[in-house]
Amino acid sequence: MHLPVPLRGVVPPLCTPLTGTGEVDARSLAALVEHLLGAGVHAVFALGTSGEAAQLTDRWRTAALRTVVEAVAGRVPVLAGVIDMTTERVLDQARAAAAAGADALVATAPFFTGTHPAEDAGHFRRIRHAVDLPLFAYDNPGTVHTRLAAGTLLDLAAEGTLAGLKDTTGDLGGLRRLLLGLRARGLQDAFTVLTGSELTVDAALLAGAHGVVPGLGNVDPAGYVRLYAHARAGRWAQAAAEQDRLAGLFALVEAAGTDGASWTSAALGGYKAALHALGVIACPATSAPLQPLSEAAVARVRKLLAEAGLT
Amino acid sequence: MHLPVPLRGVVPPLCTPLTGTGEVDARSLAALVEHLLGAGVHAVFALGTSGEAAQLTDRWRTAALRTVVEAVAGRVPVLAGVIDMTTERVLDQARAAAAAGADALVATAPFFTGTHPAEDAGHFRRIRHAVDLPLFAYDNPGTVHTRLAAGTLLDLAAEGTLAGLKDTTGDLGGLRRLLLGLRARGLQDAFTVLTGSELTVDAALLAGAHGVVPGLGNVDPAGYVRLYAHARAGRWAQAAAEQDRLAGLFALVEAAGTDGASWTSAALGGYKAALHALGVIACPATSAPLQPLSEAAVARVRKLLAEAGLT
Amino acid sequence: MHLPVPLRGVVPPLCTPLTGTGEVDARSLAALVEHLLGAGVHAVFALGTSGEAAQLTDRWRTAALRTVVEAVAGRVPVLAGVIDMTTERVLDQARAAAAAGADALVATAPFFTGTHPAEDAGHFRRIRHAVDLPLFAYDNPGTVHTRLAAGTLLDLAAEGTLAGLKDTTGDLGGLRRLLLGLRARGLQDAFTVLTGSELTVDAALLAGAHGVVPGLGNVDPAGYVRLYAHARAGRWAQAAAEQDRLAGLFALVEAAGTDGASWTSAALGGYKAALHALGVIACPATSAPLQPLSEAAVARVRKLLAEAGLT
Amino acid sequence: MHLPVPLRGVVPPLCTPLTGTGEVDARSLAALVEHLLGAGVHAVFALGTSGEAAQLTDRWRTAALRTVVEAVAGRVPVLAGVIDMTTERVLDQARAAAAAGADALVATAPFFTGTHPAEDAGHFRRIRHAVDLPLFAYDNPGTVHTRLAAGTLLDLAAEGTLAGLKDTTGDLGGLRRLLLGLRARGLQDAFTVLTGSELTVDAALLAGAHGVVPGLGNVDPAGYVRLYAHARAGRWAQAAAEQDRLAGLFALVEAAGTDGASWTSAALGGYKAALHALGVIACPATSAPLQPLSEAAVARVRKLLAEAGLT
Repeated sequence: MHLPVPLRGVVPPLCTPLTGTGEVDARSLAALVEHLLGAGVHAVFALGTSGEAAQLTDRWRTAALRTVVEAVAGRVPVLAGVIDMTTERVLDQARAAAAAGADALVATAPFFTGTHPAEDAGHFRRIRHAVDLPLFAYDNPGTVHTRLAAGTLLDLAAEGTLAGLKDTTGDLGGLRRLLLGLRARGLQDAFTVLTGSELTVDAALLAGAHGVVPGLGNVDPAGYVRLYAHARAGRWAQAAAEQDRLAGLFALVEAAGTDGASWTSAALGGYKAALHALGVIACPATSAPLQPLSEAAVARVRKLLAEAGLT
Repeated sequence: MHLPVPLRGVVPPLCTPLTGTGEVDARSLAALVEHLLGAGVHAVFALGTSGEAAQLTDRWRTAALRTVVEAVAGRVPVLAGVIDMTTERVLDQARAAAAAGADALVATAPFFTGTHPAEDAGHFRRIRHAVDLPLFAYDNPGTVHTRLAAGTLLDLAAEGTLAGLKDTTGDLGGLRRLLLGLRARGLQDAFTVLTGSELTVDAALLAGAHGVVPGLGNVDPAGYVRLYAHARAGRWAQAAAEQDRLAGLFALVEAAGTDGASWTSAALGGYKAALHALGVIACPATSAPLQPLSEAAVARVRKLLAEAGLT
Repeated sequence: MHLPVPLRGVVPPLCTPLTGTGEVDARSLAALVEHLLGAGVHAVFALGTSGEAAQLTDRWRTAALRTVVEAVAGRVPVLAGVIDMTTERVLDQARAAAAAGADALVATAPFFTGTHPAEDAGHFRRIRHAVDLPLFAYDNPGTVHTRLAAGTLLDLAAEGTLAGLKDTTGDLGGLRRLLLGLRARGLQDAFTVLTGSELTVDAALLAGAHGVVPGLGNVDPAGYVRLYAHARAGRWAQAAAEQDRLAGLFALVEAAGTDGASWTSAALGGYKAALHALGVIACPATSAPLQPLSEAAVARVRKLLAEAGLT
Repeated sequence: MHLPVPLRGVVPPLCTPLTGTGEVDARSLAALVEHLLGAGVHAVFALGTSGEAAQLTDRWRTAALRTVVEAVAGRVPVLAGVIDMTTERVLDQARAAAAAGADALVATAPFFTGTHPAEDAGHFRRIRHAVDLPLFAYDNPGTVHTRLAAGTLLDLAAEGTLAGLKDTTGDLGGLRRLLLGLRARGLQDAFTVLTGSELTVDAALLAGAHGVVPGLGNVDPAGYVRLYAHARAGRWAQAAAEQDRLAGLFALVEAAGTDGASWTSAALGGYKAALHALGVIACPATSAPLQPLSEAAVARVRKLLAEAGLT
């Protein structure tokens, strides 16, 4: 499917439901796709951080992406993460994602190894050159441990290497300056800027971002679609009120706490516990090394869903 | 002067003009106060990071604060930074600021030494107990290297230890969650939340913050006053446009680059070069170890002022 | 081949020579193995950071490891890195390494995703349970961005999950405390501790470490073998003198500087430039996103080799 | 008193005993001086991190330093910390320390504000120029949050600005390379290098450092004096054994844990609890925001003293 330029709206990073024995649960994944498309999302992003791409083997990644492509069936674009350490490994992921039917690719800078901005630029150029799909940069210093330089992004946008950016830096001031830089180059309608920060979508849209990739959008896609619609229509007070409601719901990523498990376990487990409680997926399991939520944490998730009006 | 509760509006962190021989330039400082009050700012904040509090000796700090109090002459509240490493040292600063006529104090968590949230809480309680002035917490992990925990802030707000917060974390999502926490406790009109992020003021106000402490407000106070007025009136598109203009002007903090000097030299030197170019202060000098801007950097500052319509 | 317990001595992390077209250069890799074994190293470690494991595709990793196993031909043990983001992906790597003939596995904590010590422990337990080879933990916070907790390591040592540790933390004080902890549990001869810090091998051996995994040992294996022999014999002044000479040679990792490339490019490129200059490998190429050394940098490498008495 | 060049041996960073009401306890401080000098230390360092310099007001700092100078009475050199945020503030501290009788000054790079190496160099030059006492750089990235560049240190050593370095980076490899750099410039006997890492003194001395500034040396000065003597005599195995014993004792800095207090509270409180248990000081109190040790923590400290043979 052809990707709109720019891509606007709500693009949830799909969770990847698993069975109790750790396989990709294709039926639940297809149900999740319907949950999102039924709420009116504008595209989906498979194999991102929320999709446990880091935890899935290559075989599972391909299985998940094929399931998503089939379930979406061309109704909206499917972006696919190609998360791996360095260029040649990402190329292997990119070829697999293209073969599985992705409409666009989303790649981080190299990680594990440190990089220089010139190496980041070369990395994206090689990927774009080798696989003929629109390419998004995924700027996520919380996992990648480097941040993409604004100058590098503007250059790669101007030359056509990158089609867009998923910004998960949490730095809205930097995002605004990037948007100004794009405008100064006349690229504001040619390069897609999506925020990955669930709690400041109103602010990012007010600053000119085109859309949002909210992990929490797995759980409450309709909320993000409403928020986006308010913002597009200039109803900023309503947008902020919807954002506030979603910010309250976001507490489900902390329901498990971090006393005996990582923040990642708490967050991804919180999303899956909520999807399970909502009846969307069959099993809330996450993949190793992530740890399951306790019953008390699941109860807190259910309470938050009720407070947000979702049950 | 009695501090409004909450304190709303634009509260610039005053630069501290120096003479060529490194003394506080009282005449220029008084002129800067008029520059700001003439533009309609709602309060001023002396001895903050932008005021080179970290670079000024105790004697200079007192001289600067006395000059500000005298120049303001009760027209707006004067907040004073009491920046030092640990509790007893901050108390010395706090007593001096109270004696110099400050209307409220602004303190960071302890730094140099690591702290625990319980120690941060004790720190603020001791300061509030020892000096009878409203106390603001200054959350600035870029300089203090710890971040105030949201739970600590909510507790200190609820018990009345803290009157407000200057948030310079850059984390607008966290700020929104704090504002929701205050609302859940009925404290939204009892505890002042000011953002210290120059580039996302529209967003912070949309999320419910009461005001802003913009270093860039030294240079363009009228711009921030307009931005604030748009936001208060619900004219969010105009607020964002004004914010965009100010974000363009903000490039003056980078005019010097960081090839031979620190980011601090570039930023504080950029503000002072602009104030000097605007004719507000007599000399753009900063204090050691900060380094002066090159002529080329000053020229870039002048160009940015012109582009922003200030000259 | 059975792994000695503890494994003592010099265990270089093999570079992976590439051809000009980016394939693994099996002939050069075999020559490198001879270069090291001829110098008397006690084991080799394939597919570590110095071996560009992060840059190699799965196909290349397997090709490199098979070449090493074949070239070593049972003369010393072959440890193999199984570097990937999370547990199931590491298991895929571990099965491939076992099939290729590795004598032991070396795994990091999960990365990209944050982890909790309990998750780290579960990670290593699952790997050890699934693949029946001695397992070393690779503690390298510079790339993995978490550090293994001492308590976790001691528990995993005591229960037999881990056979040893490659410590690349640079924290010799922590290493000493770990060694004391092992001694307190009677594990000092049951659990192998190898330092990955090229510049403090004398110190680590003095503190009780069993050996060293020096990237620089690709270039000067005889130097590290001499250093180890001095230390084992209690000739500490000679050990320190040899270490000083090697510390001078270590400057080759900085020959390229970091103006236009990453530290990783400079370091791995420096090793390969040296091996090329010494005639051990046919081509100094590294894999994307790493960048080649300039001619000037290569000249500096040659100068350092001469100063260290290697040419 | 004239400072030896280089300064060799054990230079404990003196704790600052306080009374129950928070004043400097001059009698206990003098007793601590005798405890150290009686054990044969080669100099003392007042107003360092272990001395709670960050927690003491200017008045207390001066009181403490005067007490130390008087108690030492010229028997060994007295180094004095001049810890403050930036150059002019450090100059105020430096003048006060000189007036109080310090034999040498110890200054960090500027903190709170970020710095550039050129600014660090200017900082030290201004201090050295303004106050005519030998000047040591105190490289402590754990508190200062920048690290002094090796090139800067070598330049400042060569030009005579700095007389020496207290290295608390924990990076023994970097220390070795600095020592090699000094040797290459013929400065190995002209510039003093002291390690601040309690657990790797044998290693630092083996690499050529001149001495050590061990916080733990407040508690067991005789142990460090023995360790130093072994090292000077080339008895490296005995040095390592003594170091191992001291590394065991070092656990007293963790006796309090970090569940309800900072690592700083635990460490400085641990030293003082030990000195109190040994009968050297009258009261184990530390200064705000540091928190007192629990009874259980004090009991653990006493147990560690017994295990180390000190009671």
